[in-house]
Amino acid sequence: MLPPVTHSRAVVLASRPVGEPARSNLRLETRELPAVADGQVLLRTIYLSLDPYMRGRMNATRSYAKPVEVGEVMEGGTVCEVLESASPAFSPGDIVLAHSGWQTHAVQDSQSLRRVDPAKAPISTALGVLGMPGFAAYVGLTEIGRVRPGETLVVAAATGAVGSVVGQIAKIQGAHTVGIAGGARKVAFLRELGFDVALDHRSPTFEYELSEAVPDGIDIYFENVGGAVWDAVFDHLNDFARVPVCGLISQYNETSAPAGPDRLPQLMSAINIKRLVVRGFTQRDFISTHYSEFQRDMSAWLSAGRIKYREDFVDGLENAPDAFFGLLKGKNFGKLIVKVADDPTRPAPPVP
Amino acid sequence: MLPPVTHSRAVVLASRPVGEPARSNLRLETRELPAVADGQVLLRTIYLSLDPYMRGRMNATRSYAKPVEVGEVMEGGTVCEVLESASPAFSPGDIVLAHSGWQTHAVQDSQSLRRVDPAKAPISTALGVLGMPGFAAYVGLTEIGRVRPGETLVVAAATGAVGSVVGQIAKIQGAHTVGIAGGARKVAFLRELGFDVALDHRSPTFEYELSEAVPDGIDIYFENVGGAVWDAVFDHLNDFARVPVCGLISQYNETSAPAGPDRLPQLMSAINIKRLVVRGFTQRDFISTHYSEFQRDMSAWLSAGRIKYREDFVDGLENAPDAFFGLLKGKNFGKLIVKVADDPTRPAPPVP
Repeated sequence: MLPPVTHSRAVVLASRPVGEPARSNLRLETRELPAVADGQVLLRTIYLSLDPYMRGRMNATRSYAKPVEVGEVMEGGTVCEVLESASPAFSPGDIVLAHSGWQTHAVQDSQSLRRVDPAKAPISTALGVLGMPGFAAYVGLTEIGRVRPGETLVVAAATGAVGSVVGQIAKIQGAHTVGIAGGARKVAFLRELGFDVALDHRSPTFEYELSEAVPDGIDIYFENVGGAVWDAVFDHLNDFARVPVCGLISQYNETSAPAGPDRLPQLMSAINIKRLVVRGFTQRDFISTHYSEFQRDMSAWLSAGRIKYREDFVDGLENAPDAFFGLLKGKNFGKLIVKVADDPTRPAPPVP
Repeated sequence: MLPPVTHSRAVVLASRPVGEPARSNLRLETRELPAVADGQVLLRTIYLSLDPYMRGRMNATRSYAKPVEVGEVMEGGTVCEVLESASPAFSPGDIVLAHSGWQTHAVQDSQSLRRVDPAKAPISTALGVLGMPGFAAYVGLTEIGRVRPGETLVVAAATGAVGSVVGQIAKIQGAHTVGIAGGARKVAFLRELGFDVALDHRSPTFEYELSEAVPDGIDIYFENVGGAVWDAVFDHLNDFARVPVCGLISQYNETSAPAGPDRLPQLMSAINIKRLVVRGFTQRDFISTHYSEFQRDMSAWLSAGRIKYREDFVDGLENAPDAFFGLLKGKNFGKLIVKVADDPTRPAPPVP
């Protein structure tokens, strides 16, 4: 019999970064777990999701969610196995989606968990294509992008967890899709994903290539990057274009406003004259209204092979910080997931 | 018997302004009228509407409507009397809403006209509260602002043709309304219009007064001004705030982007984090879907005395240019209308 689990290894916020985060801002430590109270479960983390929004949680400033406090465990979505349960809703061995953060074990209230069915899809997809990033792509497109057949959609970070789903759903809905990524390997993968045009933002002629790719202008620009891609896209936006603003990863490490001229008036003028819709959103504002519809549609698309996905696994919680720093620079290739412990639902690889 | 009308006096675009328009950009001239063809009518202009959007038509650059060409009559909405008709739809003496521009007479296709009923309201209101500006306020609020009872709405240029209607409709719909205008007389009028708070943007403590006026933040900022008002409003926008962008009168004479820092990233970040909706619109995109509903609602509100309006009349077409330049500086007080000829539906004032 295994000894009882009393402690968790965790990555905590050691100090708040100014600009680009560094190893010194995060600290690996061992924390004592609380007792499992009535209605709670003890979890073992199998997979930890790493996502760009986490950079915002490291700041003290107000956002749509409260910051992680210094000394607290870094926030994050996880797929876990139930080890002990004091809740009638779950039994040991159950696989659940939690938001238990960057740690090996956690005690959580059972009502904060969602059951994951290993028979339906690999359980890691609950953090990607069947989880938060996939849902963000889905609601951003359907509720704000409102793609119509024949329209042109552009998305950057297009091999990523959100962008790859955006492009594929838009294609299913009949759009002309242009995906933007960095480097030849990612661009090649964009073609596998079915993008009509795949562009490399590192190309010295990127702006020209983009203009060639959108002869009829851009009807939907799904914004999850900002910066230079926005600048290139801006002049091509059509009248009545929609810009769901899902994220701005290129800006997350900025500490001050860039030098002028001030382009705010120009943006407002374009919004006015072109009757643009520029709307920010987070997926969680839509969970109560759209989540089950998403699960139904996405499961069907996956089963039919109409949506592909790619996962980028990193082994070991201790490697989460460097993987996260790489994510902010676009070094990951596909949905970035930390494998914190062995996945009991996947057979072990054969011994060579 | 009166001699036949063969010519029109007109204000034409003499040259394109760079920055602030001047008298030299406009020219009064006499133009020969074409013959009245089948399906057409000859009109005598009674009222000409002056509106901020006309500044945009003086530029060569692309907008949601094509520019006025140099040498052509300035564009504008008018209320006219039919003098001659070669259309079964109209008879001499009928009053119509036209888009015949800055001139005393015009020959127009009958299908471009809308009948105005002098028994319903003063015919000049077809250019204001019952016309384009009133409709812009109505669709901007209902389709984009989506006011809910108890929410806070802010609007600037709030004694103007659009702003005054925005504030009053929002009040009818249960909002806490904050109106912004320039100068004591206009601020006093805001109170007559029923705004909950009336602010003078010329006050040295304007920003402080605004923050006091919106203790619960701002849920709807109806944007028709831009510039310093936007800057003051920006930090008070609540999560999920809506910003219908109707116009940006403070920017229309700008010839280059202002000095930095570049605040575009900051705006995009706020849109993202606060899940703002920033959406440009023009009323004419909604005519086919919302115009009759607007006429029904606004007529009822006017009859019930729930919406008040103020008109600022200028006598004589020759005074239109100066009146228009004043409009761009906020010198008008209420809906600005040029009285081009006597209104046959209003009794002459008694001889003193």
